[in-house]
Amino acid sequence: MTDTDEQLAAGNGLLDRRFFLRAGVAGGATLLTASASAIEREAWMKVPGSAMSEAGASSSYEAHVVRAPIGSAPGTVGTGVSRTPLQYLDGIITPSRLHFERHHNGVPAIDPDEHRLVIHGLVERPLSFSLDALARYPTVSRIQFLECSGNSGAAMEPEPVQGSCASIHGLVSASEWGGVPLSVLLEEAGVKPGAKWLVADGADAAVMSRSVPLDKIMDDAIVALYQNGERLRPSNGYPMRLFLPGWEGNMCVKWLRTIKVVDQPAMTKDETSKYSDLQKDGISKLFTFPMGVKSVITSPSPGLSMGSPGTYQISGIAWSGAGKIARVDISTDGGSSWAEAALDEHVMSKCLTRFRSAWRWDGGPAVILSRATDEVGNVQPTRESVLTDRSPTTFYHYNGIQAWQVAKDGEVTNVYV
Amino acid sequence: MTDTDEQLAAGNGLLDRRFFLRAGVAGGATLLTASASAIEREAWMKVPGSAMSEAGASSSYEAHVVRAPIGSAPGTVGTGVSRTPLQYLDGIITPSRLHFERHHNGVPAIDPDEHRLVIHGLVERPLSFSLDALARYPTVSRIQFLECSGNSGAAMEPEPVQGSCASIHGLVSASEWGGVPLSVLLEEAGVKPGAKWLVADGADAAVMSRSVPLDKIMDDAIVALYQNGERLRPSNGYPMRLFLPGWEGNMCVKWLRTIKVVDQPAMTKDETSKYSDLQKDGISKLFTFPMGVKSVITSPSPGLSMGSPGTYQISGIAWSGAGKIARVDISTDGGSSWAEAALDEHVMSKCLTRFRSAWRWDGGPAVILSRATDEVGNVQPTRESVLTDRSPTTFYHYNGIQAWQVAKDGEVTNVYV
Repeated sequence: MTDTDEQLAAGNGLLDRRFFLRAGVAGGATLLTASASAIEREAWMKVPGSAMSEAGASSSYEAHVVRAPIGSAPGTVGTGVSRTPLQYLDGIITPSRLHFERHHNGVPAIDPDEHRLVIHGLVERPLSFSLDALARYPTVSRIQFLECSGNSGAAMEPEPVQGSCASIHGLVSASEWGGVPLSVLLEEAGVKPGAKWLVADGADAAVMSRSVPLDKIMDDAIVALYQNGERLRPSNGYPMRLFLPGWEGNMCVKWLRTIKVVDQPAMTKDETSKYSDLQKDGISKLFTFPMGVKSVITSPSPGLSMGSPGTYQISGIAWSGAGKIARVDISTDGGSSWAEAALDEHVMSKCLTRFRSAWRWDGGPAVILSRATDEVGNVQPTRESVLTDRSPTTFYHYNGIQAWQVAKDGEVTNVYV
Repeated sequence: MTDTDEQLAAGNGLLDRRFFLRAGVAGGATLLTASASAIEREAWMKVPGSAMSEAGASSSYEAHVVRAPIGSAPGTVGTGVSRTPLQYLDGIITPSRLHFERHHNGVPAIDPDEHRLVIHGLVERPLSFSLDALARYPTVSRIQFLECSGNSGAAMEPEPVQGSCASIHGLVSASEWGGVPLSVLLEEAGVKPGAKWLVADGADAAVMSRSVPLDKIMDDAIVALYQNGERLRPSNGYPMRLFLPGWEGNMCVKWLRTIKVVDQPAMTKDETSKYSDLQKDGISKLFTFPMGVKSVITSPSPGLSMGSPGTYQISGIAWSGAGKIARVDISTDGGSSWAEAALDEHVMSKCLTRFRSAWRWDGGPAVILSRATDEVGNVQPTRESVLTDRSPTTFYHYNGIQAWQVAKDGEVTNVYV
């Protein structure tokens, strides 16, 4: 199959998404010259395979697909982040072992039988819930993203940071989150008139503490008990965490221990000195809760070099705290022309959405970009636009367009356009 | 909150799904008598937590949530099954480590760089694909179930087998499956006139071999490379398997090595002597490919005893090889009366669907059942109906209604109704 004019959707070889499923043709197969029956069986077909197991591990050939822990304070091992290796993943689900972590004083070793969730403050009946008690309440589950508001903050640096896609954008993941609607528990406690917020505290040694408007809680907040079908893992809040679909990760308090219903936000350090956005005029914006519309190309990306010229799939993830992704546009000529990407079948609200385009790379230098639009019309901004009013010292809530440069030798690097 | 007539949807305390989210009230919380601020911090809040990690492991308190390997041939360790522990899971995604296994001669230790997929037979151009070559083709991903056609075969026994939900029904799982549409690869190879089927062989020592109609392949078959976002795990076919949405698991050949395009089925042992359904009249039904509409209550279920009388959530999974689940009905009085369950938000085609009902258990004996209906109108049959024409020696493709009995002491057992 050769390109025709109608297959080309934008400059520099980008193919139309309607031709997407045919665009891979002639992509890299080898013509078989011998008879198939003459191919000798490989060594692993000549011996019985290994035993069945209680838990299926990854192949030893995939040992590089791990999170990369990076401490944020000298001398500590439990304060910092470990990022999801986005460049090695496909689809939308993040395996739980690879979900990003952001801790402020490590992962507490909680005995689930001892743990309690306490609801107090402006309520008629202060209540304490064991895990056994919560098991008798109705639960719901949904597939949704979780993003640290510090994700992609490296893009605020004056010069492009060189590193993998994960090292810049790996503080976002998606899981099926299941648990008890917090509205049900609050209804049982009886919220008093005048209540407007709650303050959620974690059972870690840092006692992570965040204020959340009551409207959001009554809308779709859950006390999450399950992640991807199984109980939460300790590094993501076992035995329970607050989960606020589409809102910044830091508010989804892990190891949730107390909920105090109040009439105004508590102004904790993690909603004032941190997780707030200093503007150039010296005013700091507080309470930027929903994460902005955003996308990033995960393949190709730095570290995943391209081979010989020919057809490639450009693939990545898009998401928005405001709802569903409506479309993703791709450019392979540095933003001069754009074409719409194909989206995988399941487009869900406040969830990662996988996009794909086919690209006939001619072997020349190229700059590839993705731009997401959500269902309420928000369009992912350029980096320049994000930086307009921001102090250069801030780095939260960055959602600008990411550009990757493909060199003639196929190497991919981070660039600003 | 107390029951009112309008909350009751069926006999024996089953509550209406519209009241579902309020039905948990008074479920098990403890009234807090002391001031919340007087609650002493637990031991794990007084020391820094453990370090960040490359991969998040499960809590040691969840060590019982594993697959249970059971050999099917004496003296072998790689021939048999290991089942998904359904009774400990919620939502629809099965963590990859817990996806069921069914092997015929163990798990081969495949070097992905050496592995090739060969397409030959009735094609213009026999082709060989390395993993690198496949990486340049377009991919798609979807969240779908996979079920062994031998799942639930224990229900064919004359007396109810006593064991966990997993031990009877644990050969079904759901994942996000991602890979290259096989139609794209066949188009490149060029299917010759007269081709109607293909024969897929695995690279295990048993050389699993199954015939698949070409219509299904061109519809939605993929060469799966990814499961739940990451590369397949060895026990599920690393580095690639055939995936046929909604069709019996055995046809989704793991460690996919060769595809031969042919004009008629090969009548391999795994589609004739096995995975076929012997009828009472001595005729064996071959080629029952799509899995029937089915459901099972996972909680409560044997081993998960109920506590004191009060409100409980009844929860389970439903699926159909024909498409989406349209509704699930629940009975708590042995099938005398039924009421519709609530379904979780994401109802996807050929995927597990989580259903939930609230039940006010009065502490008396009860028999609970679920009955699924799919979007094309198939209704899950009774056990009696499934057995009508079947030879008692066969056990594949069982999709009858499962009944669990709840005793006065809360113990749950398998019963026939």
